[in-house]
Amino acid sequence: MAKHDIGFAAVARLAGVSNATVSNTLNRPEIVAPATRERVLAAIEELDFVPNRAAATLRQGTNRLIGLVIPDIANPFYSAIARGVTEAAAEHGYTVALCVSHDDPDLELRHFEMLAEHRAAGALVAPLTADASRLAQLRRVGSRLVLMDRTAPEGTGCSVAIDDVHGGELAVAHLLATRRHGGDGTPQPSGHVVHDVPRTAKRAATPGPGIVLVNGDVAIPQCADRREGARNAFIAAGLDPDDLREVTVDEMTVDAGRIAGRRIAARTPRPTGVFCTNDQLALGVIRGLNDGGLAVPDEVSVVGYGDLALAADGRVPLTTVEQPKDELGRVAVEILLAELGADRAAHEHVTRTLEPHLVVRESAPLPA
Amino acid sequence: MAKHDIGFAAVARLAGVSNATVSNTLNRPEIVAPATRERVLAAIEELDFVPNRAAATLRQGTNRLIGLVIPDIANPFYSAIARGVTEAAAEHGYTVALCVSHDDPDLELRHFEMLAEHRAAGALVAPLTADASRLAQLRRVGSRLVLMDRTAPEGTGCSVAIDDVHGGELAVAHLLATRRHGGDGTPQPSGHVVHDVPRTAKRAATPGPGIVLVNGDVAIPQCADRREGARNAFIAAGLDPDDLREVTVDEMTVDAGRIAGRRIAARTPRPTGVFCTNDQLALGVIRGLNDGGLAVPDEVSVVGYGDLALAADGRVPLTTVEQPKDELGRVAVEILLAELGADRAAHEHVTRTLEPHLVVRESAPLPA
Repeated sequence: MAKHDIGFAAVARLAGVSNATVSNTLNRPEIVAPATRERVLAAIEELDFVPNRAAATLRQGTNRLIGLVIPDIANPFYSAIARGVTEAAAEHGYTVALCVSHDDPDLELRHFEMLAEHRAAGALVAPLTADASRLAQLRRVGSRLVLMDRTAPEGTGCSVAIDDVHGGELAVAHLLATRRHGGDGTPQPSGHVVHDVPRTAKRAATPGPGIVLVNGDVAIPQCADRREGARNAFIAAGLDPDDLREVTVDEMTVDAGRIAGRRIAARTPRPTGVFCTNDQLALGVIRGLNDGGLAVPDEVSVVGYGDLALAADGRVPLTTVEQPKDELGRVAVEILLAELGADRAAHEHVTRTLEPHLVVRESAPLPA
Repeated sequence: MAKHDIGFAAVARLAGVSNATVSNTLNRPEIVAPATRERVLAAIEELDFVPNRAAATLRQGTNRLIGLVIPDIANPFYSAIARGVTEAAAEHGYTVALCVSHDDPDLELRHFEMLAEHRAAGALVAPLTADASRLAQLRRVGSRLVLMDRTAPEGTGCSVAIDDVHGGELAVAHLLATRRHGGDGTPQPSGHVVHDVPRTAKRAATPGPGIVLVNGDVAIPQCADRREGARNAFIAAGLDPDDLREVTVDEMTVDAGRIAGRRIAARTPRPTGVFCTNDQLALGVIRGLNDGGLAVPDEVSVVGYGDLALAADGRVPLTTVEQPKDELGRVAVEILLAELGADRAAHEHVTRTLEPHLVVRESAPLPA
């Protein structure tokens, strides 16, 4: 304990500088002459001095602490975000306070009160179902706030999100480009890529492209966005988006996917591809299609969403849409630090959107 | 900002009590008369007062902040521990500072210095390869420290670990109890459980029980412990532990497991069961056995270790050893808080060991 009680004054005395110079060396080293800085750092080393953040906080108002408020740390989507956040924060000398909310508004508010007590510099929040009033309340209690995986309403704050509309479009464009069978189950010549067929010929040849969307409740913004992207891919290919067949599940789990897969396998005409809006559903759908006698990818292609560890490691490695989760965390930290550095009156809120990309594996391969 | 600057004095004035009573109401409410407590809480509410942890820290020496130092937050083993830690900490009014070390001693030390600067009350550390001198250094820099997933050497500190020897024993005892084929590949009568056969008869009938261990480097304590448990299961069944066949892999991945599985499938006599010391290896081994023409579980049973999400969600759901990861995190917090509450001189270090248990699924089912 004793060594922590060594103060600025002792360091200043040993280095032969003022207390203010010691403070500047630690907090704004760029304004201190290199030779002086060296002397101060040598004194700090000799005295084994640890700057007292609690005292600094009282002087400056906030601590070098960032709150990370997420619904669940054991969910791989959020733990990957947390990895990006902790890395970026450490690079800037900030510590991350991990606050798990279970998407419970009371618990979330309690975390914010604790962050305020610790004089946290700001917080990064990934709300699952938060409504506007709840976010406004958090903003009142907390200090600066950056929303993650959600776009902040115009003018209310900074945010960083992933373009899930584009992600859905990537998935279905891939299924359209690589299908090897017509919607009626008739094999097409090998290597024949349907999107190369003139539009009118294609529309006449098949009743629809035989693509099925397996999705959760569209009240969840991510589900609505991925569906919109899937429909956009149809439009871009000159197809009627209402020809996209849809199966909605109550829970986005492997078990629900398996039941959906069995149902899809029983349909006529046989589907050529299935887009599932998360990886768990896709793993289940593959099993359900197999139960119904359809082989993946030989007879039906399947694309997932999220690129979780289980996507690559399953029996049939999944083609899926990878979200830049680490980057989301890193960018959120950078936006927050920029806001902290800016004059509060002059600060303009930032909305950043990150692009997902397609990872092609066995469940929906590229054409041979 | 202004509301945070309301002090104890204003609350005390409004409630008509001393500053000390306000402090006691917040920190030791049990010693304040209920009626007085109510008055203080009403004043706090009216003034929208947030206790200033920075000021409290200067008075008390430490903050209600606990460091969680782990090698990787995106690894599901550590993110499950983090879930247990954050829940238990929140219940006790503590905030968790998440410090990801990537098992880099320099980074780990930097995190400890930051925790010291924040006057953290203590830290929970899961070292991957830390040697004794490195831990001693962390103890010098940090405040109180509890080791996780590692037993602290006698008298050096508190720790909480999982009994991996017992876990290995559970896995192999299950394979011994449920195998349906002799080591020579001859099917035994259905429902015939080998461990019911008198020892002498069993030893005479087969050259060995046909069980293979697929393991990482035994320089990793967890790998050594799981192997020791596997051998103990042989001894408990009256078998020679040297009859346990072993395959060592460089990396504990799905790909390495698949190569190991192919090699095992080519062996004579055909194995009856394979114990893999993590779930990734087990998923790979199943694929490798399939590549070699062996069906799981019809011809060979496979048991994993860890019970990750991918264990349940694979094509053949894995029988595996579940580690109480959430509980590990919770117990670590409780041990730390008990140490904080105790007189430093009177404190005796605690070593807790948690028991894993077997989760039986399709890859190694119970006998019919």
